[in-house]
Amino acid sequence: MRTTVGIIGAGPAGLLLARLLHRAGIDSVVLEGRDRAYVEHRQRAGILEQGTVDALRAVGAGARMDREGLRHDGIELRFDRRRHRVDFPGLTGGRSVMVYAQTEVCKDLIALQLKEGGPLLFGAEALAVEGACGDRPRVPFRHQGREDALVCDYVVGCDGFRGVARGAFPAALSRVFERTYPYAWLGVLADVAPSHDELVYARHERGFALLSMRSTSVSRLYLQVPAGTDAEEWSDDAIWSELQRRFETDGWRLERGPLTHKSVTPMRSFVHEPMRHGRLFLAGDAAHIVPPTGAKGLNLAVGDVVTLARALVHEKETGSADLLDAYSATCLRRVWQAERFSYDMTTMLHPAPDGTPFDARLQRARLERIASSRAAEADLAEAYTGFPLE
Amino acid sequence: MRTTVGIIGAGPAGLLLARLLHRAGIDSVVLEGRDRAYVEHRQRAGILEQGTVDALRAVGAGARMDREGLRHDGIELRFDRRRHRVDFPGLTGGRSVMVYAQTEVCKDLIALQLKEGGPLLFGAEALAVEGACGDRPRVPFRHQGREDALVCDYVVGCDGFRGVARGAFPAALSRVFERTYPYAWLGVLADVAPSHDELVYARHERGFALLSMRSTSVSRLYLQVPAGTDAEEWSDDAIWSELQRRFETDGWRLERGPLTHKSVTPMRSFVHEPMRHGRLFLAGDAAHIVPPTGAKGLNLAVGDVVTLARALVHEKETGSADLLDAYSATCLRRVWQAERFSYDMTTMLHPAPDGTPFDARLQRARLERIASSRAAEADLAEAYTGFPLE
Repeated sequence: MRTTVGIIGAGPAGLLLARLLHRAGIDSVVLEGRDRAYVEHRQRAGILEQGTVDALRAVGAGARMDREGLRHDGIELRFDRRRHRVDFPGLTGGRSVMVYAQTEVCKDLIALQLKEGGPLLFGAEALAVEGACGDRPRVPFRHQGREDALVCDYVVGCDGFRGVARGAFPAALSRVFERTYPYAWLGVLADVAPSHDELVYARHERGFALLSMRSTSVSRLYLQVPAGTDAEEWSDDAIWSELQRRFETDGWRLERGPLTHKSVTPMRSFVHEPMRHGRLFLAGDAAHIVPPTGAKGLNLAVGDVVTLARALVHEKETGSADLLDAYSATCLRRVWQAERFSYDMTTMLHPAPDGTPFDARLQRARLERIASSRAAEADLAEAYTGFPLE
Repeated sequence: MRTTVGIIGAGPAGLLLARLLHRAGIDSVVLEGRDRAYVEHRQRAGILEQGTVDALRAVGAGARMDREGLRHDGIELRFDRRRHRVDFPGLTGGRSVMVYAQTEVCKDLIALQLKEGGPLLFGAEALAVEGACGDRPRVPFRHQGREDALVCDYVVGCDGFRGVARGAFPAALSRVFERTYPYAWLGVLADVAPSHDELVYARHERGFALLSMRSTSVSRLYLQVPAGTDAEEWSDDAIWSELQRRFETDGWRLERGPLTHKSVTPMRSFVHEPMRHGRLFLAGDAAHIVPPTGAKGLNLAVGDVVTLARALVHEKETGSADLLDAYSATCLRRVWQAERFSYDMTTMLHPAPDGTPFDARLQRARLERIASSRAAEADLAEAYTGFPLE
């Protein structure tokens, strides 16, 4: 097989890139190791920054999002039984976010791609990236029991943290930046209307809790648990009781409903530099991971492929590789801001099992600072609603 | 000896408190274990917040400060050979700071107190605080070879981190919050005009450096060194070369001059809660220590005694102990904001010996955030110029 841009991975990064290229008249092939049902149902993020919303609309994938997505103008911080709302538009000159699950983004993009895009092969497992430094990189892959190869002008690794693309970087070139956390999130989906109409980020001495939602009738709730926790250790009753304790505040009640999904998300910060090697580019989780507290993972992936599509279109139209050459540095500036913000939100809200009493007081002081300084609050609101694309 | 308010320690906290009480017609006695020359010459901080400047003026100790102090409208952050100025008045609605050394503040307050205040005894070593919970607390002390005791209505421990006052709190009541850092500051005084007219906070991969000044002809410079460093390990030449490397940026030159003082300052965060037990109150370093990066130590001490003086005057005038009862909680809110800020400035600018490459990138991202977001920059400027007294 031959194409201009070979894309490994049909998560939001790979799918959106294929759509952006298609609209610019650049052909691509997407290889996805999993089947369609898996991709459409794996639970991931659900907060879209304005830049992400704009990009989805620009490729024609905004109709259902605009109909079913929920615009959120703020979040609530809850600590010491106090409630503090952060007003996004008031602090950022009008910015807000959209609650629309990554699963739905993927469904919309897949439907569009299959209807009018280039090839999108499910169950097509990329085995390696070869010749990234040459003129014609090549992606051998296995599909329906047969081995084949995709020959491309460019290869983009959108294949996530465990994908093969990153492995094609020479060890001498790769620099890895990493941090793990001694806690994880136990996440559940519940068939019950959310108990608050915006996200609630709660710091409690027993641990962090997050109230979120997938729709007006489905709640998405998270509890901080020790790293390595098995979701099955937690009964439905234990989950609800613990949520109730961590969100507790006067005059507020957590509504319960049937749990339909239960899983544990590990917490990790990770960046691979650079994000480009010859004709191979990394985008999204293949290059960087953030802990989910800042809701930045999906948005960073979108930022990467918007930047990359712009660079590829620029190269096609002008013959200049300037933007492709700048890709890694351009993305990494945004990536490190998101890493910083995600780290700060995470460490501000999660009491660490090895945390000292000093650390706990520092967390409270940070929350009180946000609740009492418009500058500190605006800093948070700007970062939450999104770092603008350059 | 009998007095209304017994003050242990003639640092800025104790001296200013004595002045504030004197002007309100409340008598006090100050006991200081060291001699006058020692107190007037120990090198400490030199950045006064607006609230500190106002308090010194209010007690008549502002004349020389207003003549010789240097008003600073900003600081410079230097990193990756870049320079970023933080404009205090522009970001905070007009606030600035004053550069005037703590040694000079002490000299001014001592002169005033000896001229027209209550007793100020040098070489008077407080041995304990007794009966803090009773009506008449008592401070036994040793002065000129004799043992004596000060009997008071209230005792205020302004006797620093190693003083006796904190030890009079029952163990069951005391909560200590602490953090140490694996680095210290090697500080020097140099007889040379400062190479920049505002403070320069430099983050370099070899370590933090700070350019400060005592006057237009005396520079105060600091280098991050490993904790436990002996100042004598560093030759004058080695100090100047290392400073030059850490401040290096295009078109800028560090001027050298004779070094007249060399010492190592350890870095510590420490808070003792509560700050009041019966008729005993703690103020300044006796209750809390910050690493010097945020220039908050002296200002916190001033904030404590301004709050305490107001409460004592209120009690005298109205008979109500409300403000005295609120003293600890009122101060601790400000203290924890200063602890947070000092911790953040410190950890943003000092590469830790055990820091990971991820930590180093995070430091750069924080500095870039401040250099690119007015909200983040205003957050820093507000905190640097001072948390308002309640």
